[in-house]
Amino acid sequence: MKVVVLTGGVGGARFLRGVVDVVPPADVTAIVNVGDDLEVLGVHVSPDMDSVVYGLAGLADDARGWGRRGETWHALETVNALDGPTWFRLGDRDLGLHLVRTEALRAGELLSEITRRITRAFAIETTVLPATDDRLRTWLDTPAGQFEFQEWFVARGHRDEVDAVRYEGGAQATAASGVPEALEAADVLLIAPSNPYVSIGPILAVREIRAALARRRVPCVAVSPLIGGRAVKGPADRMLARLAGGTTPAHVASCYAGLIDALVVDEADDTTGLEVEAIVTSTLMTDGASRRSVAEAALGMVAA
Amino acid sequence: MKVVVLTGGVGGARFLRGVVDVVPPADVTAIVNVGDDLEVLGVHVSPDMDSVVYGLAGLADDARGWGRRGETWHALETVNALDGPTWFRLGDRDLGLHLVRTEALRAGELLSEITRRITRAFAIETTVLPATDDRLRTWLDTPAGQFEFQEWFVARGHRDEVDAVRYEGGAQATAASGVPEALEAADVLLIAPSNPYVSIGPILAVREIRAALARRRVPCVAVSPLIGGRAVKGPADRMLARLAGGTTPAHVASCYAGLIDALVVDEADDTTGLEVEAIVTSTLMTDGASRRSVAEAALGMVAA
Repeated sequence: MKVVVLTGGVGGARFLRGVVDVVPPADVTAIVNVGDDLEVLGVHVSPDMDSVVYGLAGLADDARGWGRRGETWHALETVNALDGPTWFRLGDRDLGLHLVRTEALRAGELLSEITRRITRAFAIETTVLPATDDRLRTWLDTPAGQFEFQEWFVARGHRDEVDAVRYEGGAQATAASGVPEALEAADVLLIAPSNPYVSIGPILAVREIRAALARRRVPCVAVSPLIGGRAVKGPADRMLARLAGGTTPAHVASCYAGLIDALVVDEADDTTGLEVEAIVTSTLMTDGASRRSVAEAALGMVAA
Repeated sequence: MKVVVLTGGVGGARFLRGVVDVVPPADVTAIVNVGDDLEVLGVHVSPDMDSVVYGLAGLADDARGWGRRGETWHALETVNALDGPTWFRLGDRDLGLHLVRTEALRAGELLSEITRRITRAFAIETTVLPATDDRLRTWLDTPAGQFEFQEWFVARGHRDEVDAVRYEGGAQATAASGVPEALEAADVLLIAPSNPYVSIGPILAVREIRAALARRRVPCVAVSPLIGGRAVKGPADRMLARLAGGTTPAHVASCYAGLIDALVVDEADDTTGLEVEAIVTSTLMTDGASRRSVAEAALGMVAA
């Protein structure tokens, strides 16, 4: 069974680890958000790609929830001493990857090609693809002004309410090589419990990807990122309340209208008004067992 | 007493620490070799500038002899895992400085300006100046081919005999802002016990600097990098033997013909044929006391 997972953010990376625990990893392709990529201190950072890579490689820091285990921050200490930018937390181990990737990008290699080298080096069997190799950046319109994703999310601590989300470059972006083929070959499509606006939205902003989901002949199952109407982490609930009008499963599903056949929702949520099939389970992922259980729920539909 | 020190390499940085121990640090200007600067992993590295900065800031790793104390190598471990270049040993703390400097250079700031910010951040009172803000690179002609400095020195472990040394960009290079003024204002000029060919040579390749030394009206004293005809570290002795015909103080002085008035030489060396004044002392610098003693010997001439 070939599985494609659209994913972004740390929740998405966590879910993906559950998926590769219940499906042979080599049968899984992750299509990853690049809308929150950034350049900081001259290096290109792809935070969502890295969360996926570190998660699949067994290198993730589960306690902190992001970045690498056993990380140190000595480079950033120097940057701080020199009054350089430290708002984006680059760990030393993490930085090594950014340096290699940035150099390769400057030499003309595509993000998808570099990612292939990185996953091979970390012995990852799952195919990890950026949604696009083109430049695509998520912008937030807020009462305080317009901000690129990381400025809004990290530098300003996502304190500004969001009036609109824009995907700069989205309309022109072409799906990365391998993405259309994976979508075509898939037996099931999954949308991870990521933020619909800032993690999945940028992926769906790539026309070919949205079109492939819209014309799918296989099931597409999304996992709600909310538990009892609240985001486990991050601003998904506030964004849904303001942009979709509420935080029920129906509101989550409205973000994926015409694209999904079922939504995995938490037992604490009210499925009233949900127009796709509800798969009700406990969706909190705190360890390997709960990650697997959510993945099984999402994939269970196919078995049924 | 205003002191200018021409310096490169780790021996030069060590000598400079002695000088600022016996002269008020704010009265000292270091003019530093940039011929062995390099770009690695997309970052600009100025190894000799950094040796000076770390030495003066009290951050140097005296046991290892180069780089920063308390250094870690986690970024490079990742680079290694990803089959990236690890031949040039970039430590994590060190890397923070390279990132800040590289970003500033890309933004159009001059190396001398960035260095001013760095020394200020590290509370260094001594003025540290690159010989030039222009691109100047040391190349070695060897029987095995032509190599840029770091490739010859680090990657190939300076195993190749040197037939000639070239300073690419030297003839066109302008002295960095502050360099001519410091040379003009100096009461004494010192040449550190650095390799005459690959540490001091690139500085003297800048016409204005060589001319300022040639027309000096104040004493210029060099310190020999040899002890008993042998280099304390590095290939200076092999280079002198092949390029100057021997390893006596007279051969060292021949590298600075017309530019120096005296040479500090070790008690173990034979001053026969030396045409400038010999200042004989123990030149091995193993600790603060010996560094000061060598600096005092070099400056003693002025007092006499």
